[in-house]
Amino acid sequence: MTGQLADHPDRLFPADPGTRDIARALHARVADLPIISPHGHVDAAVIAQDTPFPDPAALLVTPDHYVTRAIHASGVPLDKLGLGPTPAAARETWRAFCAAWPLYEGTASGYWLRQEFQHVFGITQEPSAVTADSIYDELSETLLEPRFRPRALMKEFNIEVLATTDDPLDSLEHHAALTADPTFATRVVPTFRPDAYLNIGHVQWKSNVERLLASNGGASGYAAYLAALEGRRRHFLAHGAVSSDHGVRTPATVKLDVADATRLFDKAQTGEASAADRDVFEAHMLYEMARMSVDDGLVMTVHPGSYRNHHGPTFDAYGPDTGHDIPFAVDYTAAMAPLLQDFGTAKDFHLVLFTLDETIFSRELAPLAGFYPSVYVGAPWWFLDAPDAMLRFRSAVTETAGFSRTSGFIDDTRAFCSIPARHDTSRRIEASFLARLVAEHRISEDRAHQLILDVVDAAPRRVFKL
Amino acid sequence: MTGQLADHPDRLFPADPGTRDIARALHARVADLPIISPHGHVDAAVIAQDTPFPDPAALLVTPDHYVTRAIHASGVPLDKLGLGPTPAAARETWRAFCAAWPLYEGTASGYWLRQEFQHVFGITQEPSAVTADSIYDELSETLLEPRFRPRALMKEFNIEVLATTDDPLDSLEHHAALTADPTFATRVVPTFRPDAYLNIGHVQWKSNVERLLASNGGASGYAAYLAALEGRRRHFLAHGAVSSDHGVRTPATVKLDVADATRLFDKAQTGEASAADRDVFEAHMLYEMARMSVDDGLVMTVHPGSYRNHHGPTFDAYGPDTGHDIPFAVDYTAAMAPLLQDFGTAKDFHLVLFTLDETIFSRELAPLAGFYPSVYVGAPWWFLDAPDAMLRFRSAVTETAGFSRTSGFIDDTRAFCSIPARHDTSRRIEASFLARLVAEHRISEDRAHQLILDVVDAAPRRVFKL
Amino acid sequence: MTGQLADHPDRLFPADPGTRDIARALHARVADLPIISPHGHVDAAVIAQDTPFPDPAALLVTPDHYVTRAIHASGVPLDKLGLGPTPAAARETWRAFCAAWPLYEGTASGYWLRQEFQHVFGITQEPSAVTADSIYDELSETLLEPRFRPRALMKEFNIEVLATTDDPLDSLEHHAALTADPTFATRVVPTFRPDAYLNIGHVQWKSNVERLLASNGGASGYAAYLAALEGRRRHFLAHGAVSSDHGVRTPATVKLDVADATRLFDKAQTGEASAADRDVFEAHMLYEMARMSVDDGLVMTVHPGSYRNHHGPTFDAYGPDTGHDIPFAVDYTAAMAPLLQDFGTAKDFHLVLFTLDETIFSRELAPLAGFYPSVYVGAPWWFLDAPDAMLRFRSAVTETAGFSRTSGFIDDTRAFCSIPARHDTSRRIEASFLARLVAEHRISEDRAHQLILDVVDAAPRRVFKL
Repeated sequence: MTGQLADHPDRLFPADPGTRDIARALHARVADLPIISPHGHVDAAVIAQDTPFPDPAALLVTPDHYVTRAIHASGVPLDKLGLGPTPAAARETWRAFCAAWPLYEGTASGYWLRQEFQHVFGITQEPSAVTADSIYDELSETLLEPRFRPRALMKEFNIEVLATTDDPLDSLEHHAALTADPTFATRVVPTFRPDAYLNIGHVQWKSNVERLLASNGGASGYAAYLAALEGRRRHFLAHGAVSSDHGVRTPATVKLDVADATRLFDKAQTGEASAADRDVFEAHMLYEMARMSVDDGLVMTVHPGSYRNHHGPTFDAYGPDTGHDIPFAVDYTAAMAPLLQDFGTAKDFHLVLFTLDETIFSRELAPLAGFYPSVYVGAPWWFLDAPDAMLRFRSAVTETAGFSRTSGFIDDTRAFCSIPARHDTSRRIEASFLARLVAEHRISEDRAHQLILDVVDAAPRRVFKL
Repeated sequence: MTGQLADHPDRLFPADPGTRDIARALHARVADLPIISPHGHVDAAVIAQDTPFPDPAALLVTPDHYVTRAIHASGVPLDKLGLGPTPAAARETWRAFCAAWPLYEGTASGYWLRQEFQHVFGITQEPSAVTADSIYDELSETLLEPRFRPRALMKEFNIEVLATTDDPLDSLEHHAALTADPTFATRVVPTFRPDAYLNIGHVQWKSNVERLLASNGGASGYAAYLAALEGRRRHFLAHGAVSSDHGVRTPATVKLDVADATRLFDKAQTGEASAADRDVFEAHMLYEMARMSVDDGLVMTVHPGSYRNHHGPTFDAYGPDTGHDIPFAVDYTAAMAPLLQDFGTAKDFHLVLFTLDETIFSRELAPLAGFYPSVYVGAPWWFLDAPDAMLRFRSAVTETAGFSRTSGFIDDTRAFCSIPARHDTSRRIEASFLARLVAEHRISEDRAHQLILDVVDAAPRRVFKL
Repeated sequence: MTGQLADHPDRLFPADPGTRDIARALHARVADLPIISPHGHVDAAVIAQDTPFPDPAALLVTPDHYVTRAIHASGVPLDKLGLGPTPAAARETWRAFCAAWPLYEGTASGYWLRQEFQHVFGITQEPSAVTADSIYDELSETLLEPRFRPRALMKEFNIEVLATTDDPLDSLEHHAALTADPTFATRVVPTFRPDAYLNIGHVQWKSNVERLLASNGGASGYAAYLAALEGRRRHFLAHGAVSSDHGVRTPATVKLDVADATRLFDKAQTGEASAADRDVFEAHMLYEMARMSVDDGLVMTVHPGSYRNHHGPTFDAYGPDTGHDIPFAVDYTAAMAPLLQDFGTAKDFHLVLFTLDETIFSRELAPLAGFYPSVYVGAPWWFLDAPDAMLRFRSAVTETAGFSRTSGFIDDTRAFCSIPARHDTSRRIEASFLARLVAEHRISEDRAHQLILDVVDAAPRRVFKL
C-alpha cells in the first residue's frame, strides 16, 4: 500500500504528460548524487559511537515535533507520545502514531514518513490501528540488524557531508573522532550555534557566559566575552566547521559602539537589562557575528521569525521543541541594513537568510540576494520545507535572483532516517520546477540539466564553502 | 449562453485531462450531499414567515455588497442600485446591474450569479442592457411561484443545517418557531454575535449594555455585565446555537484582572475611555468569550482584519455593509498567545480562526491549528471565497496542517439564492485540489475519495459540533 | 541558440496542450497591436535629437540596474560594468556581461534580453566569454545603421504612445519639438514627477523649492509653493502630460490644515524639520497632489515601498539607481483612507496604485479598486514585472476586482530596446491567464478574446486618459 505511492517513479512530478517527461529526465540526472547536508540537527555522538537506534517510537515519533504536533492537535496529550515526566511506553506511543496515520495525508511529514518506511525499512503495510503492532514488531527486529546502525546507514544513504549543530562550548570530540577514523567516509562537520550565549533573555545566558569566559582564561567583561566567542569559533574551525547558525527572534541588526555594548553587557550580567536592552544587544551581537564571519570565514546562517514555546503549559511540562514554535511576520530589509552596510560586499562573506514568512521571498530576500554578493536565499525552511511551498519559493525567487543566489537544499532535521526522503523530495521538486520552465520555452532543456546539477550539488558546496 | 458555462460538467476543474478525470469522479462523490451552512447571514424571520422574495433587484442586487461594489467602482452611484434615502426603482437598478454584467467576468460573484441564474431561476439569456427588461419580467413572474418561497427553496437546495447570525438580545422566536414546526426539515440555528456589546468604540455600546443589563435583572457593573452575557449565551444555546461569532478589528487578546477590567468598563460607561482603553478592553473581552466558550461549549469563530466603512461619505449616506470594508495585515501568533496559553488545550474548546490576509494561512494559522487541539483554520472568507484563492488556501495550509484541521466550507452569505452555487464551487475546488495530489502521486485515489467526504460533510459537522 | 527559445511560437504559454492552443489564439489577437507605454523612463532628448545609441555596453548593460545587479551579486564590482568614477571600457564591460549570461536564466531580465538580442538586433549566438567579442563587434556595427536610431526604432517597435518621466522644472522643449514634428508619429508625453520637491528629506529639497518658487515669480511661503506646483502641472498639461507620478516611501496620506502645513514647510526651509515632520509633510503633500489631480485631471500614480539606496557605500561611489533599492512591507488600507475619504469618488479622478509587496494585491488593492471608482490596481512593477509574478497578480486580483480595475501593462523602463520584449511578455501572460479561465470553463472563449483586447489596448488608454 505504502509502496504504491512511495515507489511511483513519477511521485511529485507535474501531471501534464509532456512536462512530466522532462521532469523525469531531470530527476534522473541527480537522483543518485551524494547527499550534501550543510545544516541539520543529528547528534554527532550517535554517529561517532554508532549507537544502535532505540525502539521504533523513540526513533520515529517521540523526538520529531513535526510528527507529534499533528497527533497532539487531534487531542492526544504529548505524554501519550512518549514525552514528559510520565511518558507512555514505546509500543503505546507507536499505536497512537499508527492510529493517527491519516492525519498526515498531504503533509510534508506524511510524504517523508511514507518514503522512509518503504525505502529505509521496507515496510509495505499501511500504518493503522490494526497494523500498528505488526509494524512495530517488524521495525524492532529491523533495528537490531547491523545494517541499521547509524554508520552503515550513512553509507547506505550516500551522505557525503553532514553538518551537526553544536553548543559553542562543545569539545567536538566526536567530530574529531570521526575525522580521525579512516574507515568512515562521511565528512561530519560541527556548526557554531551561539544563541544561548548572545541572547541575554535566554534563561541560561548568565551561566553560559560565565562558563564561556572561564573557558577562555577567566577574564571578565565585554571585551573578554567577544574574545572568548572568537576563540570558540576558532575551535570550531579547527574541527572542520563551515558555518555559524543564528536562531534569532528577528533579523534586526545594529552596530553599537564599544561603550554602549559594554554598558548593556554589564547590565545584563547584573540582571538589570530591560526587554529593550535585550533586543538591542541581540541585534548588536548579530552584527558582531557578521564581523567575525568576515574575519574568520565561517558562513553565517540566520533563522528568524519563530515565536518559540508559544504554549507555556506545554513548555513547562515537556520542554522546548515540542511543536509549538509558531512563525510570525518579519522584516529583513530595514533590519539587515546596518549589517549589510558594513559587510554586504565584504570579500568571501557568505550570509544565508532563511524565513518562515513566505512573503519575504519575492519582496525582500530575492532583491537582497540579487544585489549583495554575500547574501544567499536560504531554502524553504521548517513548515515551508514541503513540495508546494518549495515550488512557490522557486517561483517567487527565480525571476528576480535566478538560481545562483539560493543556498541549495537544507534538511535541518534531527530525524536521521528521513534524510534521504527529504533530499529526494527536494530533487523531485527542483526537477518539476525546471521542467515547467522548459515546457514553457523559458529555458532550454540542456540548460535545465546544467541547472539541476548546480542547485542540487554545486550550490551547497559553493555557498557553504565545502 | 449563461448555461453553456454554468452547466458545463467540468466547470472549475483543472485543464489537464488526466487530472480532470480524477476531479470529476471526486466531485461526483459529494455533488448531491446536503448543504451544511454553519455560518451565514440569512434572516431567520424570512424563513419562519416564508416571506416571498421581493423583486429581482431587491433579491439579487441591492443587498449584496459583493454585487453593488463592482458596479459602484465603474462609476454608478449606490442610489442608482437601490440604496440610500432616494433609491432607484427596482427595474432601473436591474438595468444598471445587467448593463454591468461584463464586469463580473472572472470574479467570484460572477461565478455564483451565473450558476444561480441558470440553476435556481432557469434564466438562459446572458444579462446585458438589451436583455435586462426581459430577464426582469421573467424573474418577477418566477418569484411569484410558490416553489420560489424561502421554505420551498430550502428543501430544493437540500439545506440540512443553516446558521443565522443574531443580536445577543434577539428573542430567537423565529428559530423557536422553525424548530417547533414538524413540517420543516432544515435545522436553522442562531449564532451569538456580541460585537456591539463588547467593543466600547461601537456607537451603540452604551445603550446596548444598558439593554443587556436590563434584560438580566437590572444589576449594573462589570460583574453583572459578564453575567448578562453568560445568560444570553445560555438563551442561544437553549435555542440550538452552536457557535458565537466575533468580528473584531484585530485578534488581540489579553487577560485583565477583574479590577482592571472593571475600571475600563466603568470608564467606558462614563465615556472616558481612550482609544487605547478600547483596544485593551476589546482584547480582554475576546479572551473572556473564549473562557465562556470553554464553559458552555459554544464554538468560537473569529473574523478580524477588516477596516470597516473605509469611505466615510458612503457610510454616512448608505450605512454599513455597502462594499467598502477593506482588509489589512493582521498578526495572529502573538495576538492569540494569551488566549491560547489558557484555553488552547481546553477540552472540547473549538476556535475557528478566519483571515482576509492570505499570508497568515501558511505562516500562522496552519502552524497554530497543527498544534492546538482547539484551533481550526477557517475556510477562505469574503474576498478569498473564490476558486483560485481556495486553491491557494489548500496549498498553503495542507502541507503543515493536513486536512483535518480546517473548518469545512462557510458560505457566510446574506444572498440566500447563491447558497447552492457557493457550496458547489467549493466542492469543485476541493475536488480539483485533491485531484492534483492524486495525479502527482502524493495521495491515493481511494484516500482522496475519503478526504473529500470528510472536508465537505464531516468537517463542518465535527468542527461546529453539529 | 538564442533564437530557439526567443522565436518559439509558444514561448511563455502553459504546457497543457488544450490550454496552450487557447493561449496561442488569444495572443495572436493582440500580438501586433501598437504599444501603449503610459509610464517609463526613456529620455525625451534622445528621441527628439535622434541620438545614435552608443556602444553595446552603454546601451544594454551599464545603465540597466536590473542587469548590473545580477553581475554585481556574482562578485563583480560595478566599476567593471562601466559605472562610477573609474569605469571599465565598454568592451570590458561587455565581456563581463557575456560571461555572466547564465546568471539570467529564469529571470525577467534574461527573458527580455534574449528577445531583444534576437528580435531587435538579430543576434543568434548565445552570449558567453567565448562569443563576447564577436557579438560586441556585430552589435557595434548594427548600432551605426540608420534603422537603429531611436526614431526609426520607435516606428519599427510600433510605439503609439510613450510617456517619459520628468522633473517639474523641465522646460519640456523636447516634447514640444516632437509634438511639432509632422514626420514623427509617436505621441511622446511627459510625466510630472515632483518627489524631490515634496519630500523634505530629499537632499536637494531646499534648492529645488527655491528654484520652483523662482520659476513662479519669486513669491515665498507655503501658499506660493502650492501655487508654483499647480503652475508646473499646468505647464505639463499644456505639453501633453496625462499623469503625475509619486515615488513615496510609504503611501501614507494626511490632510493638514493650512496653518500646520505652513508651519512644517517653514521648519523645513530653515532645516529644523524632524524625521516625523518629514513623514507628515510627505503624507500631506501626497494628499495635496490628489487634490490637484481632481482639479486638473492628471492621472495620479503612486509607487511606494522601496528602501532606496540600501547599501550606502555603493550609493556614495556609484550614485542612485544602481541596483540596491529593496522593497519592504507596506500598508495601503489605512494609509490611503484620508485621501480616499475626500477624493475616492471624485469625478474623473484616476489613482493608480502600485506595489512591490505582492501580499497587497489580494488583501488591499483589489478590494480598494473593486469599490472606489478612482482606484486602479497598477500592473506588477519592477521585481514583479515577470511572467510568474504577473500570473500571481492576475490570480490575486481578478476574483475580487475583475479585469476592468487594473491599469494595463506598464513597462517602466529606461532600457528603450527592451520595450517590445516587455510588452510581448505581458501579452503572452495575459493570454496564458485568460486561456486557463477558458480551459476551466470559467469564461467563454469569445469573452476572453474581448478581454484580452481590453486589458492590452483599451485599459491603458482608459486608465491614463489617452
